[in-house]
Amino acid sequence: MIKKPYLLFLADAPDRNACKTAFGVAFWRPHECVGELRYPEAKTDCGTPAMDVREAARRGAKTLLVGLAPSGGAFAPRWIETLLLALDAGLDVASGMHVRLDSVDAIRDRAKALGRVLHDVRLPPPGILVGTGRKRPGLRLLTVGTDCNAGKMFTSLALEKEMTARGMKATFRATGQTGILIAGSGIAVDAVIADFISGAAEQLAPANDPDHWDLVEGQGSLFHPSYAGVSLGLLHGAQPDLLVMCHDPSRKTMRGNVDHPLPPIRECIALNEQCARLTNPKATVIGLSVNTSRLGEVEAKALLSRLAQEHGMPAVDPVRTGVAPLVDAIARGRR
Amino acid sequence: MIKKPYLLFLADAPDRNACKTAFGVAFWRPHECVGELRYPEAKTDCGTPAMDVREAARRGAKTLLVGLAPSGGAFAPRWIETLLLALDAGLDVASGMHVRLDSVDAIRDRAKALGRVLHDVRLPPPGILVGTGRKRPGLRLLTVGTDCNAGKMFTSLALEKEMTARGMKATFRATGQTGILIAGSGIAVDAVIADFISGAAEQLAPANDPDHWDLVEGQGSLFHPSYAGVSLGLLHGAQPDLLVMCHDPSRKTMRGNVDHPLPPIRECIALNEQCARLTNPKATVIGLSVNTSRLGEVEAKALLSRLAQEHGMPAVDPVRTGVAPLVDAIARGRR
Repeated sequence: MIKKPYLLFLADAPDRNACKTAFGVAFWRPHECVGELRYPEAKTDCGTPAMDVREAARRGAKTLLVGLAPSGGAFAPRWIETLLLALDAGLDVASGMHVRLDSVDAIRDRAKALGRVLHDVRLPPPGILVGTGRKRPGLRLLTVGTDCNAGKMFTSLALEKEMTARGMKATFRATGQTGILIAGSGIAVDAVIADFISGAAEQLAPANDPDHWDLVEGQGSLFHPSYAGVSLGLLHGAQPDLLVMCHDPSRKTMRGNVDHPLPPIRECIALNEQCARLTNPKATVIGLSVNTSRLGEVEAKALLSRLAQEHGMPAVDPVRTGVAPLVDAIARGRR
Repeated sequence: MIKKPYLLFLADAPDRNACKTAFGVAFWRPHECVGELRYPEAKTDCGTPAMDVREAARRGAKTLLVGLAPSGGAFAPRWIETLLLALDAGLDVASGMHVRLDSVDAIRDRAKALGRVLHDVRLPPPGILVGTGRKRPGLRLLTVGTDCNAGKMFTSLALEKEMTARGMKATFRATGQTGILIAGSGIAVDAVIADFISGAAEQLAPANDPDHWDLVEGQGSLFHPSYAGVSLGLLHGAQPDLLVMCHDPSRKTMRGNVDHPLPPIRECIALNEQCARLTNPKATVIGLSVNTSRLGEVEAKALLSRLAQEHGMPAVDPVRTGVAPLVDAIARGRR
């Protein structure tokens, strides 16, 4: 569990995309962000108050969140200086970068000397067990997709917001780095040893109250030639009662695999339901979540209405229309 | 690549099951085993000449193969003594145990000082890439199963033997510890980081001659709630042209999961073909490999003949009938 609230570290982020993790946290958990630390060269911001580590500590920040994930990967010397200052000021540090915080000697030694905690959220926790496939109490919904990056995290968080606003018991369960930093806990299932994927999902969404919903963030797609194993293990371990199928209609081929066209939505629904029923015979796709951001208002509404009719279930865009129709269906327990 | 021939290390194995790895190697690669080292208390043997490490070294052994995998897991002090003697005598050491050889200080230091290689076959090699899903030259066959431990390794090795005897180009590709020790190379796909399962399979069975068959050892089952993710990633990465479905008719429920009945063979064939076609549109289950060891001769023959008729493909038991009908079908390229 990562201690909150956060100080978001944007460094010299050139654009929004470079620090999308920080943006995600600021968007979904604004009240858990004390402010942000950016260098003068930064070309973007998250809309929270700018401050240094000592000011953040004074305002109650508990953890500096490294909100960037540059493709190069390494920590720049200047970043390391900032992280050391944060540790000195009393903050823990959390990061979703490929390079581990404790692989940087100065950071590891300072954290140890001061008793601070370093969170590398890409690193699964120790002690994950093999999945059992045994049914456990509580309700679960998993977001799945026709492809990677089809809005599964966004949809899960939008559902959590709408469901808790209605007084339903619902908890977002994070399976990727950004999700984990938003939730403050979770397991990066794609970084787990292959034999333990479904076990990780079982641990992530454990037994709960009979009327409590775990909203499990999906990963990849059963139709993605690189990552389908992760998606299937997650599907079996999450044991979802309900699924929401996420889709980006602007995509023609699978992400990073131009040889592979996107699967038909109908086929993707059928295969997900078939496989999910191995561990939950009631598993049903309850609705569609569609990213219509590249369409105009009229086109978008027409597409959503056509998809809803074609598949006999609500079709929403969490940004454009909100997810209320999905939550209506979840509350009813059927399409 | 593990250097051969081997000296099989049986220690004080109480029965055949305790050292089934050594048995597998002695059965499938008799000419690559110089002999075996057992303590006086051992209650079983592999049928190769008994000898100590120095005798083995004189007869050309290159690697001591730890042929046991006790559930406790640790190396007994007496075993460590034997391994050190083997290193002194000039042998490398290969092991499929959970405990890593280089986690034992004495073994690691001695190997380093003498320039010997320690092979922990459960440990995947570094540098595995994410799967691409791109088609590569060469032919591939994957053994799949209705469950774990349904004869996938045995069937793959029996196919290799029959195909090479017929002059076909065929190579067994190992994905589990025993298979890797038999082959002398391979990747334990269940120990790979989840994101890289299909990439590991692509690396294991790389581009090859257009008439060369890679016979890839399957793992788990698409219907096993604990391990299906591994099976799906392997299926996508292996890109099999043909599949052989392995089945143990004595099993009623999935291994280690009494809540889950075995899937109907027909359903298991259909799901494997459907999923395999994501990366190889021609993928077809060409035959059945059935473990009839618990049946009498008449019952067994009747079962095989019934299954062949029901599914319209050859059904064999590699031990009882041999795999010739499967190889006939493979050579024809259809059922």
